Amino acid sequence: MTRDVYIIGTGQTPVGEHWGLGLRELAAAAVGEAIAEALTEGVDAVYVGNMLGGCVNGQENVATLVADAAGLLPAEAMKIEAACASGAAAVRAATIAVASGAHEIAVALGVEKMTDAPSDVVSSALATAADQDFEASHGLSFVALSALLMRRYMHETEKGREAFAPFAVAAHQNAATNPRAMFREPITAEQFASCPMAAEPIGILDASPVCDGAAAVVVCSKAMLRPHHRPVRIASSSIATDTMALAARPDILNLRAAARSASRAFASAKCLPEDIDLFEAHDAFTIITALSIEACGFAPRSEVLAKAAEGYFARGGRLPISTFGGLKARGHPVGASGAYQIVEAVLQLRGDAGPNQIPRARRALTQSIGGHGSVAVAHILEA
Amino acid sequence: MTRDVYIIGTGQTPVGEHWGLGLRELAAAAVGEAIAEALTEGVDAVYVGNMLGGCVNGQENVATLVADAAGLLPAEAMKIEAACASGAAAVRAATIAVASGAHEIAVALGVEKMTDAPSDVVSSALATAADQDFEASHGLSFVALSALLMRRYMHETEKGREAFAPFAVAAHQNAATNPRAMFREPITAEQFASCPMAAEPIGILDASPVCDGAAAVVVCSKAMLRPHHRPVRIASSSIATDTMALAARPDILNLRAAARSASRAFASAKCLPEDIDLFEAHDAFTIITALSIEACGFAPRSEVLAKAAEGYFARGGRLPISTFGGLKARGHPVGASGAYQIVEAVLQLRGDAGPNQIPRARRALTQSIGGHGSVAVAHILEA
Repeated sequence: MTRDVYIIGTGQTPVGEHWGLGLRELAAAAVGEAIAEALTEGVDAVYVGNMLGGCVNGQENVATLVADAAGLLPAEAMKIEAACASGAAAVRAATIAVASGAHEIAVALGVEKMTDAPSDVVSSALATAADQDFEASHGLSFVALSALLMRRYMHETEKGREAFAPFAVAAHQNAATNPRAMFREPITAEQFASCPMAAEPIGILDASPVCDGAAAVVVCSKAMLRPHHRPVRIASSSIATDTMALAARPDILNLRAAARSASRAFASAKCLPEDIDLFEAHDAFTIITALSIEACGFAPRSEVLAKAAEGYFARGGRLPISTFGGLKARGHPVGASGAYQIVEAVLQLRGDAGPNQIPRARRALTQSIGGHGSVAVAHILEA
Repeated sequence: MTRDVYIIGTGQTPVGEHWGLGLRELAAAAVGEAIAEALTEGVDAVYVGNMLGGCVNGQENVATLVADAAGLLPAEAMKIEAACASGAAAVRAATIAVASGAHEIAVALGVEKMTDAPSDVVSSALATAADQDFEASHGLSFVALSALLMRRYMHETEKGREAFAPFAVAAHQNAATNPRAMFREPITAEQFASCPMAAEPIGILDASPVCDGAAAVVVCSKAMLRPHHRPVRIASSSIATDTMALAARPDILNLRAAARSASRAFASAKCLPEDIDLFEAHDAFTIITALSIEACGFAPRSEVLAKAAEGYFARGGRLPISTFGGLKARGHPVGASGAYQIVEAVLQLRGDAGPNQIPRARRALTQSIGGHGSVAVAHILEA
């Protein structure tokens, strides 16, 4: 990149079932909070991550809607869609825009409003992230595709479903002290083991919920930094892709786009996995958490579940993940989740994470994944 | 922008009803042609303009689909949506990415596949560009909203519907010699006057067709230019927004986003409306052509229709518009049209426009408009 880019403001709505709020209200709340925190007079552009506006809300042109609702007209606006990684891709788009000199200050937002539609509509809409011709049209839902991955992983590692419990237990533990999380009740490994199945071996405590929410960051160039700002630098960001269909991959457990996006991000930021203090992972299902940890180089496949059992990825462990509850327990408003991860990493790096604070948080990796690993977005942030 | 950006390759499919081709095949054809023309070995990123993938094709994650189908994996990919201006916004995104130094070479694509769905599904999908809560949900279709604009324009200018004929006649004349155009039959002013009404006063010969197509450009930095390239420089690009709902604007005939995007583009490129040799306009309806000409500063409202009657905007006139037939007659695959405009402007600036060639084409303005002027994208290209 030709110029450094900094995050100077963050905003987020609680994640949940917002019966009284639509896309525009959720977006305006998060953008307003981020701009107020940045104490800026205006922004030049808004990049809006959103996946389901068309299929679930009957609303495209969502970025213009947001610019209008948030009082940003006549700012540049475009919607960025990269399936469940849309929010993170929007932050990348805003970062690139500031780095290019096109803008000095911009807002990146992720927003999703899922709970106004019946669950079959939402399931079909989520399946649009998969290959419509070769996967979704045959009835494979998103959770069914994830179940295939989990079954294969259990076969290769010779572990049972209960070995994934630590991810869900830690996520709920972290969410318990996050006032914006959807599920603030701790769960036990026993509850995890006996939960109802969604698509065996995936149970409802493996899976992230359908919900609504919006998260935003204000990004700017070095020239726009002011003494009242507590900037977090975007040390690197990257996006990589893989085949749409699982069947086209030589090894379905190798999330190549996740691995590539992470290795590019490490190279650009000139650091290694061991230099990362916290990892906001795409824990849409516990199996995706495990595969992400492996893809980013934090542990080989043979060690991931054992390390999880030791508490390595929990709040007091060596590499805390999903420090505010993650997609699993904070909630997964799909096109917004990537932006939530970045907002939460900023809170950690500033020391503003309250009861969720990780000690010595100087460098964070966030990774957002779309379509069963067909697209992945990584950011490395530095205090 | 911190770096100059050039177009070194173009590709486009014919526009029409492609019963045998889906999103992935259309996209791969246009991208393949653009990359072949650029004679490059690979690209770093692909930015895909598409509006209706979710609502009409049941396919989101479209940019990953395109990267996969076009053999670009593991390139960065994201979908850009700005209603009917999506294709142009994708070119802007690719331009920014190269200017930022994030990439040296990238592809921008616009693609839309509209003809697989029943017309009521397409009408509803197009209405997602309007304000869902305050316009579309009350039954206002896209053509009905445009009819409101045309009725008001006729009232203010005291002109009849027949005064808009020159735009449609010139567009069909230009399309007649464009082998990729959907409607290659010339029309007369008499046919225009007596055509069936779609939403009075808008007749079917005022309106652009539902169709399929894809257009792509390869953009790169100065360092990537090679002797075999015939680069066209992107002198400026800009996006501006206005209120989603027509009812929220003080003057519905003042397309403020179009005016703002054009004035920003002129300022960045350091030129004036009189320096433009051809204008690829967003002629989705003849009324939008008239309003765009005014918004870009090419003529005041009192003179637009009179100038059109004199042939000012036709092929031999002072400011030719829609030189390959425009949205009206080349066709309007909505998320692709903005990219088609840019491909066509490049052909003109290179002198590759064949029977459609404009003499002394050194500088072109393209403008793509989404949602009745709620978002507009302008590019100025220079030979």
